[in-house]
Amino acid sequence: MANKAAPDSSRRSERSRRAIFDAALALVGEVGYDKLTIEGIASRAGVGKQTIYRWWPSKAAVLLDAFTVDVEDYEQGLPDTGDLAADLKFVLRATADEFNDPAFQAPYRALAVAGANDEELSRTFVGRLLEPGIRVYVERLRAAQEAGEVDAGIDVRVAAEMVLSPFSQRWLMRTGELTYDFVDTLVDQVLRGLRPRD
Amino acid sequence: MANKAAPDSSRRSERSRRAIFDAALALVGEVGYDKLTIEGIASRAGVGKQTIYRWWPSKAAVLLDAFTVDVEDYEQGLPDTGDLAADLKFVLRATADEFNDPAFQAPYRALAVAGANDEELSRTFVGRLLEPGIRVYVERLRAAQEAGEVDAGIDVRVAAEMVLSPFSQRWLMRTGELTYDFVDTLVDQVLRGLRPRD
Repeated sequence: MANKAAPDSSRRSERSRRAIFDAALALVGEVGYDKLTIEGIASRAGVGKQTIYRWWPSKAAVLLDAFTVDVEDYEQGLPDTGDLAADLKFVLRATADEFNDPAFQAPYRALAVAGANDEELSRTFVGRLLEPGIRVYVERLRAAQEAGEVDAGIDVRVAAEMVLSPFSQRWLMRTGELTYDFVDTLVDQVLRGLRPRD
Repeated sequence: MANKAAPDSSRRSERSRRAIFDAALALVGEVGYDKLTIEGIASRAGVGKQTIYRWWPSKAAVLLDAFTVDVEDYEQGLPDTGDLAADLKFVLRATADEFNDPAFQAPYRALAVAGANDEELSRTFVGRLLEPGIRVYVERLRAAQEAGEVDAGIDVRVAAEMVLSPFSQRWLMRTGELTYDFVDTLVDQVLRGLRPRD
């Protein structure tokens, strides 16, 4: 009997989790992090709030899991076709599309703002989302360094930030547009400085 | 009589403005932008709230003026000794000292968070504070371009963001320390890519 019940119950759990994540992402985009409540998420997801508390200790934990589900591609790392410029442009253009999409950017902005504001939350936000996002760039740059495409003396962590931060900063502080043109110029100008000296 | 009264009254006004700015900066660092009120600023500054409303339409306007008073050095531009790397390191090290100072960074963080959150406020924040801050770097890089120290094909706006954004992002999202080491590596790696090709 247990064998028969388990798959159903696990399918139900999976449906509930997905509904809770969708509700949390939609709501935080609408009301902001400060006004987001577990009650609000439960009601929007059509589950009891005890269901949420059984799995997560706080709204921050729900949100971070909701985002992590969507960014599982971090684990695969960046593409490596052997052409560093092409790979970086490909990924950053796709990321620009995401950040130019109101449905994606609103909840992410709410979380980034809450993280910037609150040092405690920021530790989790950085550890669970920002650092893994930076790390895949560091790893791709290190692979290029080993392949001789990037100078051995380059600090690849700082190089990753030279690519990522102008992008993030334009979006978060609204200091500029995230166009393909910007992305391409950024990648070209960063890589120009990383190449081995002749 | 008017001639005699004017200097006194203008000195009094100047003292009140300074007290209001100090109160606004201290308070926003303590309670955050959302909970900052004109009443709170007036009470901390020891002035009536009508005095504040006479000069400024909103708390955002007070704060932006308070910051602008402190950043008037924007108008002077960056130092230009003819050595671009040295000039950028000098300014960014001084900026790191500022952002590592809790008294400076708390109100600025409150304003940055409020700007990231609120598109309306962000237009003023970007126009009054962020853009002038970026522009002095763009101008210094353009001078270096004209002096032949930076390649003619470089987009100096994107180059300025390659220097500034990794710095701002580390601070705002707490993804890394603002050390002199970081600043120096960042400047060196950015400039490496800007030099004219032989």
